[in-house]
Amino acid sequence: MTATRFDVLAVGNAIVDVLSPATDAFLAAEGIAKDAMTLIDEERARTLYERMQAGKEASGGSAANTVAGIASLGGRAAYIGKVADDQLGAIFSHDIRAIGVEFDSKPLVGGPATARCLINVTPDAGRSMSTFLGAAALVTEEDVEAGAEALKASSIVYLEGYLFDREEAKRAYVSAAELAAASGRKTALTLSDTFCVARHRTAFRHLVAHHIDILLANEAEITALYETEDFDAAIEMCRKDVAVAAVTRGEHGAILLRGEETVTIAAAPVADLVDTTGAGDLFAAGFLLGLAQQRSLEEAGKMGAICAAEVISHFGARPECSLKSLAGDAGIPFE
Amino acid sequence: MTATRFDVLAVGNAIVDVLSPATDAFLAAEGIAKDAMTLIDEERARTLYERMQAGKEASGGSAANTVAGIASLGGRAAYIGKVADDQLGAIFSHDIRAIGVEFDSKPLVGGPATARCLINVTPDAGRSMSTFLGAAALVTEEDVEAGAEALKASSIVYLEGYLFDREEAKRAYVSAAELAAASGRKTALTLSDTFCVARHRTAFRHLVAHHIDILLANEAEITALYETEDFDAAIEMCRKDVAVAAVTRGEHGAILLRGEETVTIAAAPVADLVDTTGAGDLFAAGFLLGLAQQRSLEEAGKMGAICAAEVISHFGARPECSLKSLAGDAGIPFE
Repeated sequence: MTATRFDVLAVGNAIVDVLSPATDAFLAAEGIAKDAMTLIDEERARTLYERMQAGKEASGGSAANTVAGIASLGGRAAYIGKVADDQLGAIFSHDIRAIGVEFDSKPLVGGPATARCLINVTPDAGRSMSTFLGAAALVTEEDVEAGAEALKASSIVYLEGYLFDREEAKRAYVSAAELAAASGRKTALTLSDTFCVARHRTAFRHLVAHHIDILLANEAEITALYETEDFDAAIEMCRKDVAVAAVTRGEHGAILLRGEETVTIAAAPVADLVDTTGAGDLFAAGFLLGLAQQRSLEEAGKMGAICAAEVISHFGARPECSLKSLAGDAGIPFE
Repeated sequence: MTATRFDVLAVGNAIVDVLSPATDAFLAAEGIAKDAMTLIDEERARTLYERMQAGKEASGGSAANTVAGIASLGGRAAYIGKVADDQLGAIFSHDIRAIGVEFDSKPLVGGPATARCLINVTPDAGRSMSTFLGAAALVTEEDVEAGAEALKASSIVYLEGYLFDREEAKRAYVSAAELAAASGRKTALTLSDTFCVARHRTAFRHLVAHHIDILLANEAEITALYETEDFDAAIEMCRKDVAVAAVTRGEHGAILLRGEETVTIAAAPVADLVDTTGAGDLFAAGFLLGLAQQRSLEEAGKMGAICAAEVISHFGARPECSLKSLAGDAGIPFE
């Protein structure tokens, strides 16, 4: 097996976030599912945006947030995703490169606009997301092919469940996983969202059982995947499917599985909970980089918890301070 | 004189800000004038942006920030400015309307893109701005004409010095001031920036002496306008030119002039100074609304100081909490 150039290469929806404060009454009036991600079309994006409060824009996208976290920890990361040749696409491309992530996917010309995620942040720090996917959804096997050299040189290839929607993207994911396996690399997947799992349960189950080494999910997603209300039963089914899993439980921390081993991780303390956008993405950053660096399951989980705690202490889905410094302060030095 | 529909109508550069943290060494390496505003072309905007750190985007524009502050105080505000028919233009238009400011200027089609201000925020909370004006600079007499009904119904018409660059904009400003005067309204101007004053000193002097009732400036701008290093001399010259003036002095507060009257205002306390972007704009918000509401010079100045203190306590140039509530807490109730 050749040396790696990257700790993690991620494939996901390349999205610019629009974050606005909102009330629960606004969510109800607009029919927005609280704390979930709902796909919307361009017309709905326009009319919903018109009614939202003044906001701020920042690069987002679940797996892109994760590689941003990995770069902030000092890790080596690459990204495959689709933006359009427009202003938001330029912002996304700038931001991910500015933090040191390799991003060479070609922008889409003449198609739909760069994806926007309209995020209504409620006073309880919950985030309810309405996503117009636009160009982001149009990732194909060709994009994986174009990034194949980077992919084969990455310890872990990380796939975002959100993107697992169109047939082309599903094929691209299987290609990426097969390429990773053939190169002796590991493939990780996040289930992303319960609605996402519900839409594609059979396909997800097949992907997880046959192509995934490392699974990330929260409690609701893992029980949705295995169609059981019994969390422990879901955990045991998951243990049979994948070599390693991390199931996050919000303020109750996370449960990590590897073979018969089970490790419980406490949530890291948060002085001021502001906005939970990006919590799962940043847990994944610490956890995956820990695994890529052959750290213990416990240390990888603690890193995930530290990264998640940072991102929920402010508005927005990407780290605002050096996660490497935070990790050092917590006694887990990253180089 | 008919009843007013607006306390303040502002004319200015419609800009989306891109805010990134930066070091002083970066400013030096890029030849960026610290704490000033420099105009750049689209090519330089592209190359500078490439080298900046990952950032956040938010609607900005000096006078637009001011009307945002006025709306946050519960005041009635309108805005005239030029965006392009593009994604950043949609963001600017959304945000200013979402806070309750009337904004009906038609977007530019087929011309340059919506203006961007690349703001490098240094650790000392200073902001150094590189602005690609694009569509924003293309405000003409036609835009003033299109907004004439709102303008004639505004207590104060507020003009942003930054826009006073092209001949068309200069003519638009004189039109706006003449329209205001003919309707018995007051015209206010901010000098905006020393470089701006230096580029157009003669024209500014003429505008101030003949068309302006209320002048806003900082120390450097007022001495630049009157070509003297003697601050007191500049103050006395200013007193002869305009009915009312406010000269801001950063952490030393502000000096207010009306006829022979001089009022000194202390800066409002700031727990955590983060980013001085928007300080002058938000001082203008409180001060102008105070004047529009016939409050005392002292109360108007205090309101300006409270608004400025809020905006420099966080990243970004627009208020992030209700200025009306802040004013109430400070014993200056706004309705």
